[in-house]
Amino acid sequence: MTSQDARTSGAGREIGWHKDYVTGSRPDIRVPVRRVHLTNGQDVRLYDTSGPYTDASVETDVRRGLPPLRENWIIARGDTEEYAGRPVRPEDDGIRHTAPRGGLRNLDAVFPGRPRQPRRGRDGAAVTQLAYARRGEITAEMEYVALREGVSPETVREEIAAGRAVLPANVNHPEIEPMIIGKKFLVKVNANIGNSAVTSSIEEEVEKMTWATRWGADTVMDLSTGRNIHTTREWVLRNSPVPIGTVPLYQALEKVDGKAEELTWEIYKDTVIEQAEQGVDYMTVHAGVLLRYVPLTARRKTGIVSRGGSIMAAWCLAHHKESFLYENFEELCEILASYDVTFSLGDGLRPGSIADANDEAQFAELRTLGELNSIAKRHHVQTMIEGPGHVPMHKIKENIDLQQEICEEAPFYTLGPLTTDVAPAYDHITSGIGAAMIAWWGTAMLCYVTPKEHLGLPDRDDVKTGVITYKIAAHAADLAKGHPGAQEWDDALSDARFEFRWEDQFNLALDPDTARAFHDETLPAEPAKTAHFCSMCGPKFCSMKISQDIRREHGGDLAVDAEEGMAQKSREFAASGNRVYLPIAD
Amino acid sequence: MTSQDARTSGAGREIGWHKDYVTGSRPDIRVPVRRVHLTNGQDVRLYDTSGPYTDASVETDVRRGLPPLRENWIIARGDTEEYAGRPVRPEDDGIRHTAPRGGLRNLDAVFPGRPRQPRRGRDGAAVTQLAYARRGEITAEMEYVALREGVSPETVREEIAAGRAVLPANVNHPEIEPMIIGKKFLVKVNANIGNSAVTSSIEEEVEKMTWATRWGADTVMDLSTGRNIHTTREWVLRNSPVPIGTVPLYQALEKVDGKAEELTWEIYKDTVIEQAEQGVDYMTVHAGVLLRYVPLTARRKTGIVSRGGSIMAAWCLAHHKESFLYENFEELCEILASYDVTFSLGDGLRPGSIADANDEAQFAELRTLGELNSIAKRHHVQTMIEGPGHVPMHKIKENIDLQQEICEEAPFYTLGPLTTDVAPAYDHITSGIGAAMIAWWGTAMLCYVTPKEHLGLPDRDDVKTGVITYKIAAHAADLAKGHPGAQEWDDALSDARFEFRWEDQFNLALDPDTARAFHDETLPAEPAKTAHFCSMCGPKFCSMKISQDIRREHGGDLAVDAEEGMAQKSREFAASGNRVYLPIAD
Repeated sequence: MTSQDARTSGAGREIGWHKDYVTGSRPDIRVPVRRVHLTNGQDVRLYDTSGPYTDASVETDVRRGLPPLRENWIIARGDTEEYAGRPVRPEDDGIRHTAPRGGLRNLDAVFPGRPRQPRRGRDGAAVTQLAYARRGEITAEMEYVALREGVSPETVREEIAAGRAVLPANVNHPEIEPMIIGKKFLVKVNANIGNSAVTSSIEEEVEKMTWATRWGADTVMDLSTGRNIHTTREWVLRNSPVPIGTVPLYQALEKVDGKAEELTWEIYKDTVIEQAEQGVDYMTVHAGVLLRYVPLTARRKTGIVSRGGSIMAAWCLAHHKESFLYENFEELCEILASYDVTFSLGDGLRPGSIADANDEAQFAELRTLGELNSIAKRHHVQTMIEGPGHVPMHKIKENIDLQQEICEEAPFYTLGPLTTDVAPAYDHITSGIGAAMIAWWGTAMLCYVTPKEHLGLPDRDDVKTGVITYKIAAHAADLAKGHPGAQEWDDALSDARFEFRWEDQFNLALDPDTARAFHDETLPAEPAKTAHFCSMCGPKFCSMKISQDIRREHGGDLAVDAEEGMAQKSREFAASGNRVYLPIAD
Repeated sequence: MTSQDARTSGAGREIGWHKDYVTGSRPDIRVPVRRVHLTNGQDVRLYDTSGPYTDASVETDVRRGLPPLRENWIIARGDTEEYAGRPVRPEDDGIRHTAPRGGLRNLDAVFPGRPRQPRRGRDGAAVTQLAYARRGEITAEMEYVALREGVSPETVREEIAAGRAVLPANVNHPEIEPMIIGKKFLVKVNANIGNSAVTSSIEEEVEKMTWATRWGADTVMDLSTGRNIHTTREWVLRNSPVPIGTVPLYQALEKVDGKAEELTWEIYKDTVIEQAEQGVDYMTVHAGVLLRYVPLTARRKTGIVSRGGSIMAAWCLAHHKESFLYENFEELCEILASYDVTFSLGDGLRPGSIADANDEAQFAELRTLGELNSIAKRHHVQTMIEGPGHVPMHKIKENIDLQQEICEEAPFYTLGPLTTDVAPAYDHITSGIGAAMIAWWGTAMLCYVTPKEHLGLPDRDDVKTGVITYKIAAHAADLAKGHPGAQEWDDALSDARFEFRWEDQFNLALDPDTARAFHDETLPAEPAKTAHFCSMCGPKFCSMKISQDIRREHGGDLAVDAEEGMAQKSREFAASGNRVYLPIAD
């Protein structure tokens, strides 16, 4: 699926698709689109998350990273300053506490040529898109996402100012192509990647990121837990066209050798600054797991299933103290505001089974997240709220309704939810069902689930399957919400289907490669791609073909009847005894 | 996934699962169940559709067919009689009109030893489960499904008598294990199989049927359109433990060489009798496609996409006459009543794209199906109603609500619906989303969609993927409807997950093979299956593990608090300033 796939039609016109750009009010606002060229001469413009990698005219080099698209915008605002930054230490890559089992795979893996010093708000100023929006300022980033979404820049500003949308864009991640997360916009999809103690390498993680965005991931979370966390993240950030999220607690835990009780606010805070300086765009913070909520999980079927949640619960119990995240939340807000890191307030007590859905532990935490959301907003920190989990269909709506009410319509960002527990190896599907529904009802971003959920680490195929499944859920929700423009895509594909334009069907498909391959399995010959039948009914009898014949032979009459005379004719027919109505004959 | 997969645990107890039976009021009512043996000594009983093929104590022979389980029940009722039956003709296998391109693959393919003469109601009596139910009679079949569903026989009889459920069971298909389709019961899944003019063989079709039922298909539709239709169907019927559905119009069309305008009521009726004598349990009849509705499709994006619908539309237009199915519907009812063939009233005008959903053509036909439903019921013919198709999420509920209202709560049997058009190769997922939702809202049976929909013919893997996806949708709906017993399955699996009983998780999974294989990809060694961690977090830190530790170390206190003292403690905590609540320490 690259623009090189474009083929030349019989008439010499290029069909297939290519990467294109829509330019804004100034030449450096260039919004990427996928332009699909149909065999009937029409073009269809689709949202594109794949970054410069699919632009044949751009030479990318993973060792140099992507061009810093937003750098001039950030500098021009004049409210940030470069500074020396926190020195990178061996323990950031987990090299201190134990003998390096492999250590860095090789020294060369260190990102070659960190291009910039870190940057932060001058004198601790809040340099967030929320602060600008509240001041009535439409940033270049806002104009960019307005073009991308097909709405007015003012709509974007309003939604951000009201806290109903976030535009995650750390001042230290100038490489991203800005995007927005909010219920008035297209539903977004996040893909998780991450090495773990058990397997995986730096190169693999970077490749997973580009692979996920190529199929439509709008953001990527780097959930690495093993060695080389800092270095992996640097490679991912410098090469990522989409916002990157993390859970800083995971790295902080590595720094104390996995001993939750040894965590401190200082270690955590240092890790947050380390990651903010690298350019992480949003961070999951499980500050809603309060000491008094832990007992509420004791009688649960599956206890606490969030890693972050269980780490914080263990810390609270070990020290018999309130969570250091909750206690130091205001200071955390000040840090995040000075880099424009967006909060993703984690649901550490989300249900891990159908039996535990919508229980007291879950909703108690949600109420605390609502309180933290208000505090974050006072500090001008952009904030979204994470949601479950495992929830049967009839309990899904309560989740989004409560979240919207308690958190003043802050964007909801949900994992699934999984609608049953009985299908390990198919949890992309059990959760895709819940994801589509909760997105229809207002969830702004969906965190994907792969077929390996509960079983193992996703490989390349699993990442693709997870992303495609969630793009389906997101687009189905866009349709159901009546998002302007969403249905054009369906209409273009259905037109192609009805007119047997097979190549157009493939090129418009969410996954052109697999659609083409499936077709070719049954009818591999090239002529079959222009055949006026398909492999289900065979050449002899095809419903689409006969339906076309009907339209061709009788279309004029039928259309006239349908448009003008049907109601009248129908009454005549009823009056005549429902027997001899002949709409075509005469 | 056979009972031979059962392994011996360390303690010598067999784990895994085996086929078992629950016996009713008489020894020949033996309802199959899958009994899963857990490593903690518990057993879980699951619904089983796989027939005698998974019973190690039964020797099956595809050339002899299955034992005629229901034969004595049917004979004992004394209201049917054997008769010579319609002679089987070469054209039934499509051998008349054109030179046999291959013809029967070999003569041996004719089913060796048709065991019985056909049977029908004596003097045209309605020998349907509906007729018995209305007379207050609880048949052996009703008792069988009551045991299978865990409800009272009287509930089954009531639902059938009211027309809210059907029990498809042709008197000439004694091999089936009876099942019921209705909104008060478990949501059912149908899998389509069928050869076509392009590819496939008899043996493949039989194997597709046993493969589909092995993964959970509750019924199978044989939609063959190519040569050897009669012979293929005979093999499928004689070997099928589940009800078989067909679309007789497809075979009738073969008999007139694919020329819709040459179809006649006589040819159609003869085909229905041919199939009823073979034992087809339910038939899709597109009698709602009326001449006056055809013009309503002229301005549609994708016209008529149902094969049956387009055949009937073409016939109506060619003759400028009302549909022969509609005109002869009462006679058709009499035929079906005398074999207990169930109607599946087809939605020939279902939408084939998001743009066409819920349009006038679709709902006009639905109103006619309501009228036909009333006529069928007067003749004591069991009836269900087919539904769409392509429908965006926000338009799904209207479909089931209207159908239930117009068709007096007759079971709805829907294809998907697909919630977007943009994902060919993933339409099991686009439709699985819609299927789960519409089933939650009352659809009784879901017709599966495979990844090959719109692109090609499903192979073995596609059939499995389609069935599993739809079993997920059906079970998610059972949970959401609060079907008694549905959640036990989820609870058993979640318990196993929380307690790291990996083998139990696999054995309880909808697809044990794939779940085990996915786990083994990351952690192949045998000890990993008893490890108290999984491959996502690795051995160092696992949320399930820490959650378990919390429960082990503090469980007693926590549980007591949770149960008895939490509300009080919570008030104390609030009163103390939300700071020093220590539920564990003292």
